[in-house]
Amino acid sequence: MATQTTVAQIGTYEGQAVILRGWLYNKRSSGKIQFLQVRDGTGVIQCVAVRNEVGEDVFARCSELTQEASVIVEGVVRADARAPIGYEVQLTDIQLVGESVDYPITLKEHGVDFLMDHRHLWIRTPRQRAILKVRAEVERAMQAFLDGDGFTRVDPPVLTPSSAEGTTELFHIKYFDEDAYLTQSGQMYMEAAAMALGKVYSMGPTFRAERSKTRRHLIEFWMIEPEMAYYTHDDNLALQERFVSSVVEHVLNHCEAELATIGRDVSKLQHVTAPFPRMSYDEAIAWLQKRGHDIQWGDDFGAPHETELAGQFDRPVFIERYPTAIKAFYMQPDPERPEVVLCADLLAPEGYGEIIGGSQRIHDFHLMEERFAQHHLPEAAYQWYLELRKWGSVPHSGFGIGLERTVAWICGLEHVREANPFPRTLYRLYP
Amino acid sequence: MATQTTVAQIGTYEGQAVILRGWLYNKRSSGKIQFLQVRDGTGVIQCVAVRNEVGEDVFARCSELTQEASVIVEGVVRADARAPIGYEVQLTDIQLVGESVDYPITLKEHGVDFLMDHRHLWIRTPRQRAILKVRAEVERAMQAFLDGDGFTRVDPPVLTPSSAEGTTELFHIKYFDEDAYLTQSGQMYMEAAAMALGKVYSMGPTFRAERSKTRRHLIEFWMIEPEMAYYTHDDNLALQERFVSSVVEHVLNHCEAELATIGRDVSKLQHVTAPFPRMSYDEAIAWLQKRGHDIQWGDDFGAPHETELAGQFDRPVFIERYPTAIKAFYMQPDPERPEVVLCADLLAPEGYGEIIGGSQRIHDFHLMEERFAQHHLPEAAYQWYLELRKWGSVPHSGFGIGLERTVAWICGLEHVREANPFPRTLYRLYP
Repeated sequence: MATQTTVAQIGTYEGQAVILRGWLYNKRSSGKIQFLQVRDGTGVIQCVAVRNEVGEDVFARCSELTQEASVIVEGVVRADARAPIGYEVQLTDIQLVGESVDYPITLKEHGVDFLMDHRHLWIRTPRQRAILKVRAEVERAMQAFLDGDGFTRVDPPVLTPSSAEGTTELFHIKYFDEDAYLTQSGQMYMEAAAMALGKVYSMGPTFRAERSKTRRHLIEFWMIEPEMAYYTHDDNLALQERFVSSVVEHVLNHCEAELATIGRDVSKLQHVTAPFPRMSYDEAIAWLQKRGHDIQWGDDFGAPHETELAGQFDRPVFIERYPTAIKAFYMQPDPERPEVVLCADLLAPEGYGEIIGGSQRIHDFHLMEERFAQHHLPEAAYQWYLELRKWGSVPHSGFGIGLERTVAWICGLEHVREANPFPRTLYRLYP
Repeated sequence: MATQTTVAQIGTYEGQAVILRGWLYNKRSSGKIQFLQVRDGTGVIQCVAVRNEVGEDVFARCSELTQEASVIVEGVVRADARAPIGYEVQLTDIQLVGESVDYPITLKEHGVDFLMDHRHLWIRTPRQRAILKVRAEVERAMQAFLDGDGFTRVDPPVLTPSSAEGTTELFHIKYFDEDAYLTQSGQMYMEAAAMALGKVYSMGPTFRAERSKTRRHLIEFWMIEPEMAYYTHDDNLALQERFVSSVVEHVLNHCEAELATIGRDVSKLQHVTAPFPRMSYDEAIAWLQKRGHDIQWGDDFGAPHETELAGQFDRPVFIERYPTAIKAFYMQPDPERPEVVLCADLLAPEGYGEIIGGSQRIHDFHLMEERFAQHHLPEAAYQWYLELRKWGSVPHSGFGIGLERTVAWICGLEHVREANPFPRTLYRLYP
């Protein structure tokens, strides 16, 4: 009797009869033989139907199949060195489960708007499936690293009365009789959690109501935010480079087939090992000025600046100690130079820009109180955050890494939208 | 030189000098000896300061410490059979990092409202820390089971133009010029993903704008939603019982200390092995009627009904095949009895009620079109969901498990709010 299995596990059934349940991805015929490309979510395999062997009835059923018809295939697994996965199936029987007439996504080229309108179907194509698979492996790698490093996962709330970074880019919501906002970052909650659990991380959706339409922005995107009690700025950077290089290594080891499907030049990822180069903000400004950029000390970097700065290196680069004036209120000033803060952005190579923003946080109660006043923060909503500095405050640091940007870089995508299963962009809320 | 380590790893340093960085949880003194309970997020350890050994200065510093002061302790690790973790630290030096004057949460009893107002500090207490640790281990166990079973993680959007279950309990949001809602369930998106990736699961926040205030409800809660192509109702239940029992087993094996801190009677969890008992809805109604409940066929169960039904068993029980009229529009009717659907709720024992809702989904295009009409669903917003039935539709099933309810049951909590780090309830959005 045939064993039900998946494409991913087909190698363990060589010479045996199997049943696969999937969809017809593509088909070609040479008259007496039909070659069916069948996908089942775990991979694609060629199923070969030979007229003389399967009989007229089964052969006719194969002939009638159209793209994306769902099928249950029975056949015998054969090793085949020419096949991308090393095996093919000698088909013996096939059953149509669900028909597929005029499937809208053909194997031709389609425009991006059309594909995004059909995102629920587009994710079935091998390239999109491979990207989602890499995304899942990146998440797994991040969690495995952090769990193995003594971190505890903590899930901060999405609904918040306030935010760490101003209210202009926040989505407002009526929470019964109160006003609430969708979180831009779980950081403040993670700081509280770090005081309870030592080293913590979150992994969840965050939101920015930005009217920007670039290849690096999504309205809803996932962040992983580790926060560590008793960590200094330097501890923070050392952790980040170990973390990012372990994630890249994991993907190289676990997603060979997916990266090949995507067409990623993996040689670009093989350099991504710790330590990462570091430039101070001062050095970065001077370097850009020398290359003819019209940028002054105190300015923030734009995407072209980031691309050029990162372009010097074959792995991500830290830019550290930005001016206090252009960074978030909670960042710890450099004790020797209070006009800069103990922060760093990590810029990915190949033009992918900032994937991590992190800093040491202010742990002194009075300095934080000053910042509250300077930034006109509503004390009532933030009272609890201030209180973290009142009882047993410790130096602590943390960072946030953008999941879609990281996946876009690792996969070599043109736009972050392909790194999210159902991306939300400025004018897209469907499907 | 002393090695910096954590309470969790203290056992590997027996007889050696170590440095611990943490907070003073509690203290008692016998004149010449002080016993400091120091917590560092990974556990609590007793540090013993003997006046004659540490000298006046260090001893005086110990005397001055108050609850939740942050401290760096140096000392030598000693095995001690009386200690809950098997070790204590013979203190040699201590340094105050951050003071703590009049810490609001004392070791006395406090009211729940007070504790919830101070949730950012309350999570530092051993019991709350233990619950959060169990929550993290439940998440890890769920992911490990699903990853190991061939599932791919997919993150559905929080911002949606519509919802699977009506709009009355939805939070509305202005998405630039459009209307959007916070997701109640990622299920519809997971169905699309299952057609692309075979077996998928999500793990993320969901929202219900319900004006209910019970010990089982949160406004924002986490759900894990697996969805499987080619799975029937029976496949679905078999998966669920393997899944839940493996999660419970993982927690029993990995959280012994935490469950002891919480005071959980773990003997109640040791029976939780597959298979789980099953009752049909019909049987459940008849059983309740026989016990004198005023309930008719067609009624939904209330919390007291669920508690009584589940009270018959020492492990969770499936109640299956509810009336079509009281369940969601997308559920597959029983082919032999279309007045009931191929669904099941999983009720936890000990009064914890429903932790899982699941069903086989309608895969026939025309039947789904009929349901759209019957339920007055806006076709434009749901078009993509209907289209999943148009091209290569297959029988498929899935379920959603509530994280906080599962953690509340496993930990034996009185209220789900303790199972979430920063719970959102009807009148609580702070901290």
